Amino acid sequence: MRLHPEVAQALQTHRAVVALESTVITHGLPRPLNLELARKLEETVREAGAIPATIAILKGQVVVGLTAEELEAIASDESADKASLWNLGALVAQGKSAGTTVASTAFLAHKAGIQVFATGGIGGVHPHPYDESADLLVLSRTPIVVVSAGPKSILDLAATLERLESLGVALLGYKTNHLPAFHSPSSPYPLPARVESPLGAAQAYKAARALGLPGASLVLNPISKGLDFAQVQRWVEQATQEAARLGIGGKALTPFLLRRISELSGGQTDEANLRLLEENARLAAQIALALTQE
Amino acid sequence: MRLHPEVAQALQTHRAVVALESTVITHGLPRPLNLELARKLEETVREAGAIPATIAILKGQVVVGLTAEELEAIASDESADKASLWNLGALVAQGKSAGTTVASTAFLAHKAGIQVFATGGIGGVHPHPYDESADLLVLSRTPIVVVSAGPKSILDLAATLERLESLGVALLGYKTNHLPAFHSPSSPYPLPARVESPLGAAQAYKAARALGLPGASLVLNPISKGLDFAQVQRWVEQATQEAARLGIGGKALTPFLLRRISELSGGQTDEANLRLLEENARLAAQIALALTQE
Amino acid sequence: MRLHPEVAQALQTHRAVVALESTVITHGLPRPLNLELARKLEETVREAGAIPATIAILKGQVVVGLTAEELEAIASDESADKASLWNLGALVAQGKSAGTTVASTAFLAHKAGIQVFATGGIGGVHPHPYDESADLLVLSRTPIVVVSAGPKSILDLAATLERLESLGVALLGYKTNHLPAFHSPSSPYPLPARVESPLGAAQAYKAARALGLPGASLVLNPISKGLDFAQVQRWVEQATQEAARLGIGGKALTPFLLRRISELSGGQTDEANLRLLEENARLAAQIALALTQE
Ligand SMILES: [Mn+2]
Ligand SMILES: [Mn+2]
Ligand SMILES: [Mn+2]
Repeated sequence: MRLHPEVAQALQTHRAVVALESTVITHGLPRPLNLELARKLEETVREAGAIPATIAILKGQVVVGLTAEELEAIASDESADKASLWNLGALVAQGKSAGTTVASTAFLAHKAGIQVFATGGIGGVHPHPYDESADLLVLSRTPIVVVSAGPKSILDLAATLERLESLGVALLGYKTNHLPAFHSPSSPYPLPARVESPLGAAQAYKAARALGLPGASLVLNPISKGLDFAQVQRWVEQATQEAARLGIGGKALTPFLLRRISELSGGQTDEANLRLLEENARLAAQIALALTQE
Repeated sequence: MRLHPEVAQALQTHRAVVALESTVITHGLPRPLNLELARKLEETVREAGAIPATIAILKGQVVVGLTAEELEAIASDESADKASLWNLGALVAQGKSAGTTVASTAFLAHKAGIQVFATGGIGGVHPHPYDESADLLVLSRTPIVVVSAGPKSILDLAATLERLESLGVALLGYKTNHLPAFHSPSSPYPLPARVESPLGAAQAYKAARALGLPGASLVLNPISKGLDFAQVQRWVEQATQEAARLGIGGKALTPFLLRRISELSGGQTDEANLRLLEENARLAAQIALALTQE
Repeated sequence: MRLHPEVAQALQTHRAVVALESTVITHGLPRPLNLELARKLEETVREAGAIPATIAILKGQVVVGLTAEELEAIASDESADKASLWNLGALVAQGKSAGTTVASTAFLAHKAGIQVFATGGIGGVHPHPYDESADLLVLSRTPIVVVSAGPKSILDLAATLERLESLGVALLGYKTNHLPAFHSPSSPYPLPARVESPLGAAQAYKAARALGLPGASLVLNPISKGLDFAQVQRWVEQATQEAARLGIGGKALTPFLLRRISELSGGQTDEANLRLLEENARLAAQIALALTQE
């Protein structure tokens, strides 16, 4: 594992650092939008007063804090893999490059000593039996702050919330009592706790750490000016029915659904996606600052 | 975390201590029965020769071993929350008061160095997909003796037993080969191990600790003079059908079911509930003593 | 826990050791085939240059590396139990003897300091809700190399693969891109990583250990000259339908299914079973050697 010197120094001097994932760069967005977004997120973290640390696997090395050149390299690498926990060792041993998922970024950021990680949406329970993202178990085992806009829209939200409860993941609604639903700021599902400020989130995380709780503190940050929950659900339903008609399933299903809801929304979901990523990066930086200032 | 001086001293001098949960006080029983029961359980532990340590969150502080005044305060606090793992950090950071569930009590008792915890029924798998109590994962991660009368009556017993197996929780039938079913002393489901005495339970727990097993040793103590299993199942089924007819679901379902089976049984389930709590507290104290005496 | 002197010395001097399970001896094969197979597997490990350590519970003692006499004793002990995590403490405390499952063998081998474990098939998700082998969670918590020919034929392969992903278990196809299916060398389900040699497997495991990943590296070794996947699936389906007609379920189902597919295949599955065990023992020894030689 190699840390960017700026990140290493910030951690040693207890300054605010925010980890950022990289599957959004390698698999989430078309080129060159992916690089623009990656730079924008780092800039957002800096503007809020923290040091960004984008994490990725570069030729078999875990890099925590990509340089500008490395960010360009991973954003243009069409052969980059997706690194989750179940292939991380092999990718490293075989000298491959990969974007890191929520699961592997949270794991690696924590190993590096970073306390706050910003992402877009977390994984969860798919509406198929036994298809559950590796993000959930990692969240239950990794004591780090994760800032997200909620589980991705195509997931079974009620089941995902139940699993987060079963797994003992600390849930903190950011100025909300209900689970944010990624493209939508709210959903019908109540949350067990709420915070009103970055400091409030930092304090809840510190209390959880002091008690030795093993899991993450998941800060759920509703998107500003998001889409209507029922409307998004209808798009997801329509896309799901189309997939069934076309016989699309397995690993091809999620990309198909995402593309179709983008089309059905006339691009509104794409725009929301970019905005929430930026908003989460900003809030994560503020929480990281609050953690250093207390 | 603040320990009652008597509890702290007992732990330092390796004397027997039994942790008790407090959601049974804040959410499980009507006032003033809840305070009477809480006192009765502590008394039962003392009579059996051990020190009781009722655990709760009081104004943001984890208290292990409530004083008599604190027990009264939490029993009369109508605004007390329910603290599980997913909201524990926030409750502490926000200065709130709460009863602790099986999951959070087991976690906190173990952190405090207590080896034995008595409760009534444990949580498990609800007959709805993905609704699984946080108790189960905590039991798989926390090396403590938990004495219980089995999973609560409204749960899917077969599924709960399967999950306990999958999670590697050590199950010890107390003088029984079959899973006790809370209000009923037995069920059709066979257990993998059986002990005949408090010493037998203590020895199985010590063996598990010596091997470094990460999970709990769950002592399953059949209620004495309990209700007939098939009869309780029929009440649960009837109550479940009524809930469906009335459109009752979500968080409102469990309280409704418990109230209805109480009514349908003419109060027999309430009486059984109190008796099994006392019996479990007594057995827990005996196991705690056996642990100190070997 | 008692280690065979030869095993203890090999571990101290960093020589190659391969753990072997013992439920295949106590519950998997008829006598005297079970003892012959157990000896054959140890011999195979030795021929490949490593020290075998068959693990079992003998009269309440965990033994890592049975002597020739102990191997005979456990192979002829008709009362031997099956030790998984949920009864291990009780078996030890009560002085019983038992074969160890994949779950308990992986756990105990890792505790003993052994890095490689060979078995036949791993457990997984049964085609019944909530029936999931304890092997899976142990694999997600135990950083050891496990060499297997895939999940057993009667399991839901797709669901098992999903759970392995959710649990973050590192999967390494041995010269294959698809999940091996125990009696069959392949299945339609793609794997996330592939290695080409014992050294490749050893390097992926070392990388995972260096990163601090908590789970196993599961090396999936396709059986040579195995049976056709679709054919085995048909036998399993037929046996499952017969079981339903005969009202066979619960703990009796798996033995019934295994016996019937043996009969339906005219003994071909039994022959495959023995061959894959030997092949896995050999590959495990080669990986253990590669781990010492780098
Ligand atoms: Mn999946
Ligand atoms: Mn629930
Ligand atoms: Mn099972």
